[in-house]
Amino acid sequence: MKQIDGGVTAAKGFEAAGVEAGIKYQNRKDMAMIYSVVSCKAAGTFTTNVVKAAPVLWDKKIVETAPYVQAVIVNSGIANACTGRQGLDCCEEIADYTGKLLNIPASAVLVCSTGVIGMQLPVDKMTAGVEKLLNAKQSTLAAGLDAAKAIMTTDTVHKQIAVEVEIGGKTVTLGGMCKGSGMIHPNMCTMLGFVTTDANISKKMLQKAVSEDVVDSFNMISVDGDTSTNDTLLVMANGLAENEEIKEENEDYKAFCEALHFITTYLAKKMAGDGEGATALFETKVIGAKTKEDARVLAKSVICSSLTKAAIFGHDANWGRILCALGYSGVTFDPDNVDLYFESKSGKMHIFGNGVACDYSEEEATGILSDPEVTALVDMHMGDAEATAWGCDLSYDYVKINADYRS
Amino acid sequence: MKQIDGGVTAAKGFEAAGVEAGIKYQNRKDMAMIYSVVSCKAAGTFTTNVVKAAPVLWDKKIVETAPYVQAVIVNSGIANACTGRQGLDCCEEIADYTGKLLNIPASAVLVCSTGVIGMQLPVDKMTAGVEKLLNAKQSTLAAGLDAAKAIMTTDTVHKQIAVEVEIGGKTVTLGGMCKGSGMIHPNMCTMLGFVTTDANISKKMLQKAVSEDVVDSFNMISVDGDTSTNDTLLVMANGLAENEEIKEENEDYKAFCEALHFITTYLAKKMAGDGEGATALFETKVIGAKTKEDARVLAKSVICSSLTKAAIFGHDANWGRILCALGYSGVTFDPDNVDLYFESKSGKMHIFGNGVACDYSEEEATGILSDPEVTALVDMHMGDAEATAWGCDLSYDYVKINADYRS
Repeated sequence: MKQIDGGVTAAKGFEAAGVEAGIKYQNRKDMAMIYSVVSCKAAGTFTTNVVKAAPVLWDKKIVETAPYVQAVIVNSGIANACTGRQGLDCCEEIADYTGKLLNIPASAVLVCSTGVIGMQLPVDKMTAGVEKLLNAKQSTLAAGLDAAKAIMTTDTVHKQIAVEVEIGGKTVTLGGMCKGSGMIHPNMCTMLGFVTTDANISKKMLQKAVSEDVVDSFNMISVDGDTSTNDTLLVMANGLAENEEIKEENEDYKAFCEALHFITTYLAKKMAGDGEGATALFETKVIGAKTKEDARVLAKSVICSSLTKAAIFGHDANWGRILCALGYSGVTFDPDNVDLYFESKSGKMHIFGNGVACDYSEEEATGILSDPEVTALVDMHMGDAEATAWGCDLSYDYVKINADYRS
Repeated sequence: MKQIDGGVTAAKGFEAAGVEAGIKYQNRKDMAMIYSVVSCKAAGTFTTNVVKAAPVLWDKKIVETAPYVQAVIVNSGIANACTGRQGLDCCEEIADYTGKLLNIPASAVLVCSTGVIGMQLPVDKMTAGVEKLLNAKQSTLAAGLDAAKAIMTTDTVHKQIAVEVEIGGKTVTLGGMCKGSGMIHPNMCTMLGFVTTDANISKKMLQKAVSEDVVDSFNMISVDGDTSTNDTLLVMANGLAENEEIKEENEDYKAFCEALHFITTYLAKKMAGDGEGATALFETKVIGAKTKEDARVLAKSVICSSLTKAAIFGHDANWGRILCALGYSGVTFDPDNVDLYFESKSGKMHIFGNGVACDYSEEEATGILSDPEVTALVDMHMGDAEATAWGCDLSYDYVKINADYRS
């Protein structure tokens, strides 16, 4: 497997675009498109929130029932959530309109929205935006980058990646992009994530790969504990790499899953590190847990703790808050058997063991915690299971951004 | 039932004190004592955190097994959590020392700590503090106030209350105090809470009253979602009101529970409103839920949402975040059947219904949300159950306080 330049246009046969449609923002790209020149198998996972945005309902139905998809239309600025019948009608109108222009059925058009909850989408601006997108779409890396930028809301950086992997003697490419910065506490995945690939894989195996992957990628990040109404991960495979179709759990499937996991983990970490107001990516790795699920629950509890996150912002080795967060996670353990380490580019330090603080230097600890990527390593000494979760620190800017996000 | 002045010294036979012992703070009261001139029945609830502070382990054992208690020693500044064997020994030494001076067994002395996790308590300063407390203790309201102030950490106001209630022809008094501002997400109760009463009630009925009460009082508040290692609620009843002993669920028991609930709810709300950095008490009342437990889960999900809390800080009617938080609570419902209102002293406003935003004035909504006590009223239209939860807004000061709490 080899990382290459680009994002959603890296794989064969995919085009993309990002344009200004004036949905909410002035002078900012706010609509994006992904298009495959041939039909694709699609897989997806969606928010578990009971309050599902209209586009989530639209996409879920298509991913579950439509034979193929070929295009995705995304807008930022307005989430089209809590918008009732009118919101659903809007999805249908956009898909219809796009389908007619592309000469494909509406059921081959996925739609995604992100932004403020409760506002209705301006359909006329959206359809005008679709026209712009169709004129702009290209297979270049620059076009993929435009799309990655157009889906941003409070994100400070765009997020994309691509890899090549050898499958059945053929070079298969996967590319992905995502957005997400606030309302990030994926319970499925989070936010909007898109992966395109020219792999030849059955719809069933594609969905299986995606569903199993998110548990340890997107579902292991959190910015603020709020599971969005719009969380969507869509994966489109158009088969143009011409590898023999992956239909079962063989070596090819394994290679595909590895490449997919590389993409999703990269994007998930990028999202956590670009959490609203974040100054640091905060990773918690739990090893020696009794079960994989225990490891996941423990790691997530730590990265979700507001107090721990504030301490990371302050570069303060307030490890008691980490012990506290492990303790209320719901997993049973003996605190006397836990070892805790802080780790970053600046070094690694044993901070807690045998039930008490180690004899460490506060200054050295602050040094380790001052890096932009900080890891808390927790050894439970109860078994062999491990899991990693990613979050970010809690800063003044998180409050600033969210105290008047709408204005 | 009648609210009266005072706190833990309001009931007959209770004395208290608050002194400077130099545990961590300079020139600040940091040790408190509650003492009953006669022995008391004790009941308590403690943190569900797996990582339990040493004093929690000490008190839990005493409440469960000791025949009676007579004194409580509290310190602020150091939590005595994650302190291993040395931390437990410290509790025992303090209880021993206090018991000897008071001529009561060590098992009649409860100890509580709040503050930084991981530091060892200075035993010599603690025992010197105990001597000061014994010299200072009085039955006056002023002494009760001293105690309420000495248990504060990042609290900005002390929290106490007292009521009188008629039980079996006798006037029974209950008084309480608590501290709590951060690491507040009670799973039992939160923080440190103390209630004293001269009621005559069996230990069994006292524990029952307390255990059933916290579910709808302390367990319904959250400041930051972090369930502390030290959460403790202690209730002491010395019987000096001379009412006929409450031994079963009769009218007297009911009257006692009502008075207890008034005290605990008052203290819980005070704690939420004094959350670290808080500028507003944020109440969420859920009505029309299918079950009581559903109502509790829904209400707590809203007050725990970081995004909602930041919006309240910004006086921003960003109601979509409330719908979102209801949606990821784990309770199933149809968003189209939910009605949401904002309410405060400045008015009441229907904000969401029939699955879409109501036609409301943003200006008026901001007015309602600018009060120091704000309520979100949610009608699920699914049944008759209701519950109320209390939290606070998320402000810059929460981050400031917790980014360098230890320095």
